Amino acid sequence: MSSFEGKPIKCKAAVAWEAGKPLSIEEIEVAPPKAGEVRLKVLATGICHTDAFTLSGKDAEGKFPVIFGHEGGCVVESVGEGVTSVKPGDHVVPLYTPECGKCKFCKSNKTNLCSVIRETQGQGLMPDGTTRFSCKGQQIYHYMGTSTFSEYTVVCEISCAKVDKSAPLDRLCLLGCGIPTGWGAVNYSAKIEEGSIVAVFGCGAIGLSVIQGAKAANASRIIAIDINPDKFEIAKRFGATDFVNPLDFGDKPIQQVIVENYDGGVDYSFECSGGNVEVMRAALECCHKGWGKSVIISVAASGQEIKTRPFMLVTGRVWMGSAFGGVKGRSQLPDFVKMYIEGKLNIDDYVTHEFDLADINKGFEAMNSPICIRPVIYLAHE
Amino acid sequence: MSSFEGKPIKCKAAVAWEAGKPLSIEEIEVAPPKAGEVRLKVLATGICHTDAFTLSGKDAEGKFPVIFGHEGGCVVESVGEGVTSVKPGDHVVPLYTPECGKCKFCKSNKTNLCSVIRETQGQGLMPDGTTRFSCKGQQIYHYMGTSTFSEYTVVCEISCAKVDKSAPLDRLCLLGCGIPTGWGAVNYSAKIEEGSIVAVFGCGAIGLSVIQGAKAANASRIIAIDINPDKFEIAKRFGATDFVNPLDFGDKPIQQVIVENYDGGVDYSFECSGGNVEVMRAALECCHKGWGKSVIISVAASGQEIKTRPFMLVTGRVWMGSAFGGVKGRSQLPDFVKMYIEGKLNIDDYVTHEFDLADINKGFEAMNSPICIRPVIYLAHE
Repeated sequence: MSSFEGKPIKCKAAVAWEAGKPLSIEEIEVAPPKAGEVRLKVLATGICHTDAFTLSGKDAEGKFPVIFGHEGGCVVESVGEGVTSVKPGDHVVPLYTPECGKCKFCKSNKTNLCSVIRETQGQGLMPDGTTRFSCKGQQIYHYMGTSTFSEYTVVCEISCAKVDKSAPLDRLCLLGCGIPTGWGAVNYSAKIEEGSIVAVFGCGAIGLSVIQGAKAANASRIIAIDINPDKFEIAKRFGATDFVNPLDFGDKPIQQVIVENYDGGVDYSFECSGGNVEVMRAALECCHKGWGKSVIISVAASGQEIKTRPFMLVTGRVWMGSAFGGVKGRSQLPDFVKMYIEGKLNIDDYVTHEFDLADINKGFEAMNSPICIRPVIYLAHE
Repeated sequence: MSSFEGKPIKCKAAVAWEAGKPLSIEEIEVAPPKAGEVRLKVLATGICHTDAFTLSGKDAEGKFPVIFGHEGGCVVESVGEGVTSVKPGDHVVPLYTPECGKCKFCKSNKTNLCSVIRETQGQGLMPDGTTRFSCKGQQIYHYMGTSTFSEYTVVCEISCAKVDKSAPLDRLCLLGCGIPTGWGAVNYSAKIEEGSIVAVFGCGAIGLSVIQGAKAANASRIIAIDINPDKFEIAKRFGATDFVNPLDFGDKPIQQVIVENYDGGVDYSFECSGGNVEVMRAALECCHKGWGKSVIISVAASGQEIKTRPFMLVTGRVWMGSAFGGVKGRSQLPDFVKMYIEGKLNIDDYVTHEFDLADINKGFEAMNSPICIRPVIYLAHE
């Protein structure tokens, strides 16, 4: 049992005081968890492009000052009143898409979008409307209900996916976002069939996870599409069979290239471009008439719209999306851990850069490198 | 056996000489069917808005002079070489979406969009690149591979759905388009579940068929949406439970009205507006987060595009379309006939107007009436 149980903890965290500025390592105070909440010691965290997007100021809903981070590998430090599903010492991955198990979304087998704490989470607050972080007398907002760029964080019990202790938390942290998002989009959202021809637009961490998921589903062709051909080697390692650089075709729309070269188009396409609505359109329109299904995974800037001719849909294409891969986190994240332990899911190869918390801004810089997939940041050491 | 077998037939037809002009009743010559073709005596035909759309000149692919019509109730007069699936005297409904049974579309259980004769059909020609119609020495184009506004027509064998002779052809003709299109969109394309909440945008023949199909699928709520409240009485007769006139809500977007009044939105929506892309958007956006599925059924004018925020899809809505209700015509149209005979499918109430061929232009005029669902035109009498 933690000696801090019921008391505030002073620790280091990377605080974003304002949009567009580097993060600042500060000593913060983390209040004890209230009822239904859990305080976590964060051992490691990934940096995702969504963190960078909100930091940039382009996210209209971004609030400052805030502690970012939503790919955490954590140990439960203490629990608030009424918490029964985890206990101090348990290993957990915090979920930005929680799973209460009781709301209409959780009861539906068609979605993972539990909405019970959505409103306060979107405002950077815990469900009671307050925050657990303070620094220099100022309240600091939470981010995505996770805030893993801190040695300690507080999350809701329903946001805790308990994971097997035998797997290393500095790898499992990547199960907080990128890997389930891509893998799940293939296997939970689109539910592709064996033998499918799959196109993947963008070979970042999400795209590579789509490729990995499509390989696991025995897709017959996996077409990696990226304007950066440096990505193709790693895409191949994850299972891509074909490689297309749209820049090689001049002004010819990439959807036309795919339709012409793949007998009318692909069975499934996945948009992992980081929010480019033109790529979303291309991904839909490269699908085969009659049955092609396209899944939007990334989040576009506010005000951006997707467009197509309705005829594309009337002639049998399906346009859909996927958030966190359709994964119900508390129920299904343990399956990913099991696959990792059994060697069926590659996490290790995502970790191209590693930094200590003090150097987290170098992690953000590293993400601009073409060979970067994920930087992992080390925080508290167990 | 027809005394005209192998010879041309002279008969009456409604010819559209040019866009935007009334049809002209002419004596035409109908050549005998070539290999793989069938010559049909047309007893009755519906008029669909698609005929009116192409006649108006707004259809960029429309060709003139042409014989329109794609909802026919017909008897086989004679068959060309190699035709085995129908014989003289059989009753058939011609299909604008054929079913060859052999192409990759027919072999897929995900689509009905048989494409083997698509190219020539789209050009108003039979598969050999010629037409079977002539008038005053001029070649007349076919339309949608059916051309039922003629006492005799020639279609491909793969475009013939053989139907039970015990049902009247002046009712079965409506199985050529509107009824399967709406009913099938619900039960074959969207595959709604019992208890679903369904919104139907537009209460024309297609919309009413969606309503009827949703009732057959035991939807719990069927919301009829139309700016013409005169449609609500007939919508109710077909099974609608709720009635919404968007004009009653001022400037408030109809999708917002539906989301607010139906606990977050509907499970399924069907767009039967006749091609309005703003209605297509509203239909998508009134769907429930997490699982709402929207089906586009109507065809927009060329150049028109649908738009939405990608977030609508990422948060679990699905945007799809349906053509001819996803019905594989030769295999599945007989099921509709069976439902009609058993009293499980209402066709009779669609027929609000009846005319002889000589008055077909009155049929087109009747379609502008708010109480018109389908005019049926009588041609050759058996």
